[in-house]
Amino acid sequence: MSVSVQEVMGSAATTSVQYSFPVNQWYVAALAWELKEKPVGRTLLNKPVVLFRTADGKPAALENRCCHRALPLSDGTVEDGGIRCGYHGLLFNDAGKCIEIPGQDKIPSKAKVPAYHVTERDQIVWIWFGDDEHPEPLCEPPAYNVHSSGKYLFDGDVYHYDAPYQLIHDNLMDLSHLGYVHLRTIGGNASIHMTAKMTVESENDVVRVIRHMPASVPPPTYTAAYPFKDKVDRWQEIEFHVSHLRIWTGAMDAGEDSLSNPERGGFHMRGFHGVTPESDTTSHYFWTIATNPKSDPEVVKQKVVEQTKMTFDEDKVVIESQYKNMCRFGALPMIDIHVDTGANRARRIVEQLRTVKL
Amino acid sequence: MSVSVQEVMGSAATTSVQYSFPVNQWYVAALAWELKEKPVGRTLLNKPVVLFRTADGKPAALENRCCHRALPLSDGTVEDGGIRCGYHGLLFNDAGKCIEIPGQDKIPSKAKVPAYHVTERDQIVWIWFGDDEHPEPLCEPPAYNVHSSGKYLFDGDVYHYDAPYQLIHDNLMDLSHLGYVHLRTIGGNASIHMTAKMTVESENDVVRVIRHMPASVPPPTYTAAYPFKDKVDRWQEIEFHVSHLRIWTGAMDAGEDSLSNPERGGFHMRGFHGVTPESDTTSHYFWTIATNPKSDPEVVKQKVVEQTKMTFDEDKVVIESQYKNMCRFGALPMIDIHVDTGANRARRIVEQLRTVKL
Amino acid sequence: MSVSVQEVMGSAATTSVQYSFPVNQWYVAALAWELKEKPVGRTLLNKPVVLFRTADGKPAALENRCCHRALPLSDGTVEDGGIRCGYHGLLFNDAGKCIEIPGQDKIPSKAKVPAYHVTERDQIVWIWFGDDEHPEPLCEPPAYNVHSSGKYLFDGDVYHYDAPYQLIHDNLMDLSHLGYVHLRTIGGNASIHMTAKMTVESENDVVRVIRHMPASVPPPTYTAAYPFKDKVDRWQEIEFHVSHLRIWTGAMDAGEDSLSNPERGGFHMRGFHGVTPESDTTSHYFWTIATNPKSDPEVVKQKVVEQTKMTFDEDKVVIESQYKNMCRFGALPMIDIHVDTGANRARRIVEQLRTVKL
Repeated sequence: MSVSVQEVMGSAATTSVQYSFPVNQWYVAALAWELKEKPVGRTLLNKPVVLFRTADGKPAALENRCCHRALPLSDGTVEDGGIRCGYHGLLFNDAGKCIEIPGQDKIPSKAKVPAYHVTERDQIVWIWFGDDEHPEPLCEPPAYNVHSSGKYLFDGDVYHYDAPYQLIHDNLMDLSHLGYVHLRTIGGNASIHMTAKMTVESENDVVRVIRHMPASVPPPTYTAAYPFKDKVDRWQEIEFHVSHLRIWTGAMDAGEDSLSNPERGGFHMRGFHGVTPESDTTSHYFWTIATNPKSDPEVVKQKVVEQTKMTFDEDKVVIESQYKNMCRFGALPMIDIHVDTGANRARRIVEQLRTVKL
Repeated sequence: MSVSVQEVMGSAATTSVQYSFPVNQWYVAALAWELKEKPVGRTLLNKPVVLFRTADGKPAALENRCCHRALPLSDGTVEDGGIRCGYHGLLFNDAGKCIEIPGQDKIPSKAKVPAYHVTERDQIVWIWFGDDEHPEPLCEPPAYNVHSSGKYLFDGDVYHYDAPYQLIHDNLMDLSHLGYVHLRTIGGNASIHMTAKMTVESENDVVRVIRHMPASVPPPTYTAAYPFKDKVDRWQEIEFHVSHLRIWTGAMDAGEDSLSNPERGGFHMRGFHGVTPESDTTSHYFWTIATNPKSDPEVVKQKVVEQTKMTFDEDKVVIESQYKNMCRFGALPMIDIHVDTGANRARRIVEQLRTVKL
Repeated sequence: MSVSVQEVMGSAATTSVQYSFPVNQWYVAALAWELKEKPVGRTLLNKPVVLFRTADGKPAALENRCCHRALPLSDGTVEDGGIRCGYHGLLFNDAGKCIEIPGQDKIPSKAKVPAYHVTERDQIVWIWFGDDEHPEPLCEPPAYNVHSSGKYLFDGDVYHYDAPYQLIHDNLMDLSHLGYVHLRTIGGNASIHMTAKMTVESENDVVRVIRHMPASVPPPTYTAAYPFKDKVDRWQEIEFHVSHLRIWTGAMDAGEDSLSNPERGGFHMRGFHGVTPESDTTSHYFWTIATNPKSDPEVVKQKVVEQTKMTFDEDKVVIESQYKNMCRFGALPMIDIHVDTGANRARRIVEQLRTVKL
């Protein structure tokens, strides 16, 4: 099984191939704490993969198929030497080489499965597939020091989406839906969200959407977590990378500091959002939310995580309903409105990276 | 998404198109009491539609897809001005025109969704789609004064069928199955049902099947609802219209009056059956049952409705099993028996109306 | 609906047709005790069949489709004269002839459904379909006197598999997986299973795999059922027939007798395994397990049956997961190991019998 590819016919000089996803990227394969004693089976970019830790704690990723009788290796068990198939006991090391066939002395050289590049960094397990020209990573996986700086408490989860990855990008790049979808949690006043001044910048493959909402009424999640005096100056900063987004939001007492000061105080919610295609039509959504409680740190963190879960549950309902309806109606034209600027710029980047010139 | 169409090749003079359903008809879209505060999303004749009431209480029907990002409008909320999308808050009036884009002054002229003709009459909400030549209704929607005369108490429900609409027609046009499928409720004696004299008449697009069963033992539903002395003269009158049927049945004490007298007394059960294709292979079934209790009107009505529900549940099991088996076996020939006369005549009418000459 | 057939192109002299299954075989249709008052609907070799008993207790099998309106006959009722359709009451005898149409005197000659050859033998109901050349059975159905000798207590069950029949063959022909899949029950020591000497013999369409494991530690199921002194001499004898397998296993106190003596004593578990394709991708698995308790016969039998169920549940999980993964990955090459000898020989026999020369 390979990544879906659509050949784009062109003149001899411009023939190109369009992948379903940008493939020369590090994608999130797992959150670090998912990989414990049991192996994890997960399809990523149309490739079924088994993830596990080796004896020294490093993550490993193999094609999730025993080369003997095709059982998923994720049905097997993790041992010091690697992963053992749950049917006839073949043992594979982290390079995919079969190192034991119970009851048989000779191990044929064909007894092996493909292995993939995985690296754990800042509690995120990243995987690189690459196209045929780039099986080796072109760069280091991204850092995310919110997880390792010690300044924040955080937690997170993995959601499965019956929707293609770009609909999740669209949702995350536009926070104006907060006023309609997330009234109960982080929404606040719809018209303030809609009329807030929005700045959209981009540089290489990164897009930034920034919105400042001075003198806002703080939404329920905020007041539950932080002792604001009254109105707040609120910010939302979205940074789109091809395989993940950082959404850093927060608020401070109105007038306390400049909204543009990166060192400003107040209440922070720093969200990490890894969006990894499972298939052309389904996705994995790996998220963490980090915060800086003023007091009762564990209690406040729990509250923030709970509220965030509620919010993401609401998004999931909307996005899956949207995709189901898109399937129902087929490719009808859509109209754009003012809130789509950031999402559309992200889409152009993805579009470009999906297309590989031959 | 449009109505499925199959081109029928023919000579130049007789080229015609075959729709999956007769399209130039009023179909039942909803029972009046279904449309409350929340919008109703429902696919009718392969078209996903959102149904709601405007501020003045009139029903409205739009294509169930926001023109911005394709969310079903039925996920949104009904307001005085129309229906508001649950994602980014676009507001559409009952003509499908977008009349508000939150945070944006100018509304592009393309911001609109198709609207359909709907009319409420006698507590039934009717919808007209029509073919390309007949987008405007060719007639008024049908009256059903059993719902408005004040002589009857009634209630009803909507069932979803995993079976195409014509199998429901077949079932309703032939009441001889009562003796096998509905023994516990309205069935009565199988052989009486099977040997009862049956009259089949038709006129234009209407078919009538009439059966009289004099001196019958009244079935459980009847005796539970009405104080019959002993045996009864029983009638069944089925009137097929292309998009709905009326099945008026009842009984009076044997010999009390002529079975042919439309003003005859006794116990009446007047059934309305709206059969609206959802897709080529699935259907909506809107039914009401009205009766004229002699005493304890609410109690008796409840009993009649309950028994009717049980009966229709039994039919649903049979019809869905039948359709599943038809799919399993494919297009094998069927044999006809004496009870099929009415149903076959209805099928010929539908066949004719599905075919539109070009 | 007919058995799936794939035409194999060849030279004029060797043109042949490849069926999905060997069709000129007796297959298990039911365990005797499944056929009680209610008819059983079951698809066998892609043919939907209704099974029932006639007034004299003999099994009958008809195409599971009323010739009137296609309802499955298995939704109907068994009567002395045959089986009556649950929709309009047509009655069919065990030859498939319609012998009553309620309310209609004349029965058209076309009113009939296909009937199949079924025979009950040793509490197994066998069915013969045959190809177009061999609609009549070419032999008697197999005997299985473990069910009738009186020496054993037994019970069994029917499992439905979302996997094609040959994956079940593979599993049954190789008992080396016991050490990995069935540790909790009949597994025992993995390395003993894997290194046990295995003999594979074949003769016509029968394959025998025999393994002797002298001086083994008896596994949990064995010690629960039989008072072994200490270590045991253990045997596994698998006999593959095209439509079913016999797996006779057991153990006696180490050194008690020769493992090759067919009259040896000790603890016996005699398994019958009817593997009948439902479709190209799904299967029925009819199994019984018989044993010879030393004391507390009913209690011990119950224990053995329970443990066997647990074992077969484990196999089902593995095999269905294996098949799902094969579908995920498509036709990738597999490697063979030492344990595959028996299964591969069985596959060659099936391959040969599926191919019919024209």
